[in-house]
Amino acid sequence: MSSNQFDVVVIGAGPGGYIAAIRAAQLGKTVACIDAWQNGQGGPAPGGTCTNVGCIPSKALLQSSEHYEQANHHFAEHGIEVKGVSLKLDKMIGRKNSVVKQNNDGILYLFKKNKITFFHGKGAFAGQVDGGWAIKVSGTTEADIVGKHVVIATGSSARELPGLPFDEQQILSNDGALNIGAVPKKLGVIGAGVIGLEMGSVWRRLGAEVTVLEAMPEFLAAVDTQVAKEAHKIFTKQGLNIQMGVKLGEIKSTAKQVTVPYTDASGAEQKLVVDKLIVSIGRVPYTGGLNAEAVGLKLDERGFIVVDADCKTNLPNVWAVGDVVRGPMLAHKAEEEGVAVAERIGGQHGHVNFDTIPWVIYTSPEISWVGQTEQQLKASGRAYKAGSFPFLANGRARALGDTTGFVKILADATTDEVLGVHIIGPMASELIAEAVTIMEFRGAAEDIARICHAHPTLSESMKEAALAVDKRTLNF
Amino acid sequence: MSSNQFDVVVIGAGPGGYIAAIRAAQLGKTVACIDAWQNGQGGPAPGGTCTNVGCIPSKALLQSSEHYEQANHHFAEHGIEVKGVSLKLDKMIGRKNSVVKQNNDGILYLFKKNKITFFHGKGAFAGQVDGGWAIKVSGTTEADIVGKHVVIATGSSARELPGLPFDEQQILSNDGALNIGAVPKKLGVIGAGVIGLEMGSVWRRLGAEVTVLEAMPEFLAAVDTQVAKEAHKIFTKQGLNIQMGVKLGEIKSTAKQVTVPYTDASGAEQKLVVDKLIVSIGRVPYTGGLNAEAVGLKLDERGFIVVDADCKTNLPNVWAVGDVVRGPMLAHKAEEEGVAVAERIGGQHGHVNFDTIPWVIYTSPEISWVGQTEQQLKASGRAYKAGSFPFLANGRARALGDTTGFVKILADATTDEVLGVHIIGPMASELIAEAVTIMEFRGAAEDIARICHAHPTLSESMKEAALAVDKRTLNF
Repeated sequence: MSSNQFDVVVIGAGPGGYIAAIRAAQLGKTVACIDAWQNGQGGPAPGGTCTNVGCIPSKALLQSSEHYEQANHHFAEHGIEVKGVSLKLDKMIGRKNSVVKQNNDGILYLFKKNKITFFHGKGAFAGQVDGGWAIKVSGTTEADIVGKHVVIATGSSARELPGLPFDEQQILSNDGALNIGAVPKKLGVIGAGVIGLEMGSVWRRLGAEVTVLEAMPEFLAAVDTQVAKEAHKIFTKQGLNIQMGVKLGEIKSTAKQVTVPYTDASGAEQKLVVDKLIVSIGRVPYTGGLNAEAVGLKLDERGFIVVDADCKTNLPNVWAVGDVVRGPMLAHKAEEEGVAVAERIGGQHGHVNFDTIPWVIYTSPEISWVGQTEQQLKASGRAYKAGSFPFLANGRARALGDTTGFVKILADATTDEVLGVHIIGPMASELIAEAVTIMEFRGAAEDIARICHAHPTLSESMKEAALAVDKRTLNF
Repeated sequence: MSSNQFDVVVIGAGPGGYIAAIRAAQLGKTVACIDAWQNGQGGPAPGGTCTNVGCIPSKALLQSSEHYEQANHHFAEHGIEVKGVSLKLDKMIGRKNSVVKQNNDGILYLFKKNKITFFHGKGAFAGQVDGGWAIKVSGTTEADIVGKHVVIATGSSARELPGLPFDEQQILSNDGALNIGAVPKKLGVIGAGVIGLEMGSVWRRLGAEVTVLEAMPEFLAAVDTQVAKEAHKIFTKQGLNIQMGVKLGEIKSTAKQVTVPYTDASGAEQKLVVDKLIVSIGRVPYTGGLNAEAVGLKLDERGFIVVDADCKTNLPNVWAVGDVVRGPMLAHKAEEEGVAVAERIGGQHGHVNFDTIPWVIYTSPEISWVGQTEQQLKASGRAYKAGSFPFLANGRARALGDTTGFVKILADATTDEVLGVHIIGPMASELIAEAVTIMEFRGAAEDIARICHAHPTLSESMKEAALAVDKRTLNF
């Protein structure tokens, strides 16, 4: 096989792409992975949106801003006195950048370890050839390679408001929102989705006065209604000014400020003037530079690459995974698809269970869920039982000093099978793992209730919520 | 039924007792619960060792001291500058006491809600009578009551060193260790078990120079050897001076200091001089004042109440649960037994799976495990596979800034059934819940590996460790 010929060429080294590449290599395939992302020095920065301007850096800032919040507002109750807490934002951002770099470097190491050939550049289809698909790499590296199989994992990019392009100075996407040079006095956020709430929370904690404007009337409509209501109450109490059901007027941005005229839910004309504006109104699939049209790759009307349940596109031996295809735009969904596609290419039977993909919103408190919401069960007419348990009654939460939120479990009225688990509260992102496991085994609420949970842990709230399904909580 | 006659009388309101009382009440029984613990004002303080001088207050202090440690040593890397961090120990202890009181009050509320009659005093057997067992209550409340069934949940107390009684001023049990008035300059700990390590960690973080002396040659012998080694390395690096294999000489205590002569592992004579000494060399079952001998209640040679697998004692309708019977002295083991006994009394079929009781050590990092250790599997000759994954390679751990430790999974060599899971690292106490769930379903490592784990979470390390069992980690 010539050196530019690979069994598998993966375009994009985000969670879907790099994981597909590694799994394919594990299965004995020769693999190339192409990624154009650059770090500050122009070097490769594999990991995609997640690693560079998404999950990882946002969690780094969330942790730092959580410490800052604790120091400013909660240390006194612990008997810790600090004089003059001050913020060195450049250092905080620097730490975030070094966490990102650790992850970038980690992926480059994994490529080496798994003998994956990495190309730093963009990959474009150059037609079908003997041995598969010709892919032209351009950028830092220039190359012409051939892949018997191609896995497209080009991800997504932030959606712009019409007529208001991101300049990352005043008008910020998730990228700019992670790199503000000084804490803005007033910060606006358009869109009360996951990214808007996470970034709004970070900058509020660091001292910004944050206003979130959302066009939809209902807050976090995809989230279980009871959780969404609790979240709205908590975020509002924390100081986020959340305006739902607004109609935006024409936004004007100058070097000094951004003016956002809008009609509020009551119909009154309002004007929000802020130093910076984060626009987080969703993400769109990214297929730029792929040369998809030339080879006849089928996209849907919203720009997603059309795939079947197995992530096969309309082209032979061309697959697509992650944000660029249907389904939730979640890193771990992309990873699962990446593994499954690599295994299918390797002659195995990869499978992704879309019903048990967990969701997490990394605000404080965190929100997580898996399976169906109560409103979905109602709409589908399925008879169910619900049980919930507040962290207020959990000993570990009291010891931690964070008793916000609850665990809620929905189970089939007859079989008791767990249909959905919804958590808002401390470490919700970690607690959801148990719920996913139960659902994968199609376990019942009674199973959770009968499983021994360590004391004192937050996880005991999962057990108590399961007991609540049968109306027999022990600690509430 | 007369007002002093109950279906169930529970002696002791620790985790085993109060939970047994609640479950019995849920099943329609009339229930009394007797507990002598007093708060600072002489009022009732149900919850037993766990709530008053164990799990709950220690976790409160661990959290507070964790904040203090972060402020002193880690804020700078987050870009948070604080001038003059100082400790108001009385306030920290006060917060701990208020967390304890919340839990005490919570249990009193639960008793009311479940119509359980609470007696503040000690319960003693006064013989068999019509309708069951006569129980004499003495203390704040004096009463003569009768229980058709009696559940003994009197717990355990700290073991003293011969000739060195606890004075809780210089020579401290777990109780005194939670109530030191000023941070000692030098603190000694006899016994490198769970309590010794947790308390040693708290006071080290608060500024004490801590030396731990342990008679056994092997550190944390019950813990998976690999985890124990890692823990020893980490604790030593943190500044705990841990001496294994020591022989204690005669300890001398004055109002000012405690002198501990000992022979170290190499045979050299040493002398440790400390301000305070915590003695944490294990706990003994507590049956004081029960009048057990008079009614012929059978104890074993170590003082445990003898019970069968169902927690039945040798006396008809007398049960015993928790620390006062065989098995691990863990709050959640006591709770499970309490529920099972109440259900057996109620005509149901309560069951406790001793093979899936999780263990937690709340040091920093936390240690948790469930199932068998590698040394146990080796000793039993069972063929197994092992897989582990370091938090160093976990994105969430990097973002948190805590990458110590690892997850290790042991699975049957042939069936792949998970036989043991061992964790040392951030939030190990919460991560273990997923492992217990898998083991309850007798799931395989491959099951964990195939279950979607949210990104970025620490739980992903569980998935990666499961992949490591099959030598196919994706991120390491």
